[in-house]
Amino acid sequence: MAVRLNVKAIVFDLYGTLVDISVIAERCKEVAADGEAFCGTWRAKQLEYAFLTTLMGRYRDFLYITERALDYTVAHFGVTLDTQQRKRLLDGWLEPTAYPEVPSALAKLAEKYALAVLSNGAPRMLESGLKATEIRPHFRWVLSAQAVKVYKPSPRIYQLAAQKTRLAKNRILFVSSNSFDVLGAKNFGFKVCWLNRSGAQLDPLGPRADFIISDLTELARALGLN
Amino acid sequence: MAVRLNVKAIVFDLYGTLVDISVIAERCKEVAADGEAFCGTWRAKQLEYAFLTTLMGRYRDFLYITERALDYTVAHFGVTLDTQQRKRLLDGWLEPTAYPEVPSALAKLAEKYALAVLSNGAPRMLESGLKATEIRPHFRWVLSAQAVKVYKPSPRIYQLAAQKTRLAKNRILFVSSNSFDVLGAKNFGFKVCWLNRSGAQLDPLGPRADFIISDLTELARALGLN
Repeated sequence: MAVRLNVKAIVFDLYGTLVDISVIAERCKEVAADGEAFCGTWRAKQLEYAFLTTLMGRYRDFLYITERALDYTVAHFGVTLDTQQRKRLLDGWLEPTAYPEVPSALAKLAEKYALAVLSNGAPRMLESGLKATEIRPHFRWVLSAQAVKVYKPSPRIYQLAAQKTRLAKNRILFVSSNSFDVLGAKNFGFKVCWLNRSGAQLDPLGPRADFIISDLTELARALGLN
Repeated sequence: MAVRLNVKAIVFDLYGTLVDISVIAERCKEVAADGEAFCGTWRAKQLEYAFLTTLMGRYRDFLYITERALDYTVAHFGVTLDTQQRKRLLDGWLEPTAYPEVPSALAKLAEKYALAVLSNGAPRMLESGLKATEIRPHFRWVLSAQAVKVYKPSPRIYQLAAQKTRLAKNRILFVSSNSFDVLGAKNFGFKVCWLNRSGAQLDPLGPRADFIISDLTELARALGLN
């Protein structure tokens, strides 16, 4: 597959897109009988709290939100965590791994495009995650929701990438594995690639991605960088 | 328990607060092997889509959103619905029943307070639900998100109730069974009563309800209407 997009920059979501957060699911299994359900609730509440605080006009950074979502989850599952266990779970968000193909695909893409990260994550999370995965050097910009104090899929956070890159919306390709992020970016006006790693289902709620890939190597290939 | 609130009007959420939507869960069991999970996903996606469309500035009415959430759920569970089955599920939202204590408690409260409904529901849903449950006569105002084209917990929808009642925020008591609605109403500035029918957990995300009850009879009692 080759696509003609005429874009100058590629902006990436981070969690689930470039970096793997399955270490968190593993750690959840250490503290809860049904670790998978525990992790699912934690992640669902984390996203819900990002949406709710934005809707209420009460931004709090993503570490705060992640902690409150953990508080909810712990109470919901009747789990007791000691200080060490709690820290180990939260630290999971600071110590992701890059998906295997990501470093080499980014290196290729960076030869031709200006690359950026645009994430709901707090600056400390992004810094830590990009350092742990050693992919920081590929990016010209690392942009956090913190700068605009709203979360995806508000248009204001996508606007941040357009401002920083000084490019028209349709000269930017946005890549995300998260359905709500694909919707939000497309709604804003970016060209959008859905990196559907897990065969997930897109929410039938508006504009569709321009194209779909299953790993980042495909993106380099689709853009003609072989 | 008696509370002194000095309020003039009481504004109610509808679904799960005054009217029981468990008929929907029953109908989900007719079409899906795991009816409970099917219903849970449908409801979760319905709320998520309300949040997402509001965040993206792309309001669609609650019937549309409910249908799209059903589309997602059907695909997710690999269920096939014929036209009749689909209609029967969606009609569940138009044919709720009042919780048993609600009609008599509303009659009592209406003697002393101006009552209103403030719901995410589309006008046709509210009309149909209030007619089916025969509680319409108790309300001076029936207010839908449709009027402001944003969903709870945006402050703009709560503002609608303040405008219509022409009362200061703190002279209005807002009653809801939904955690995000309790947060939103309190964030806006209402006095808030959390009608916690099911022993649910409040999201630890901001201001707490002024008081908590487990059915509407308790509200009349708490306000001294015996």
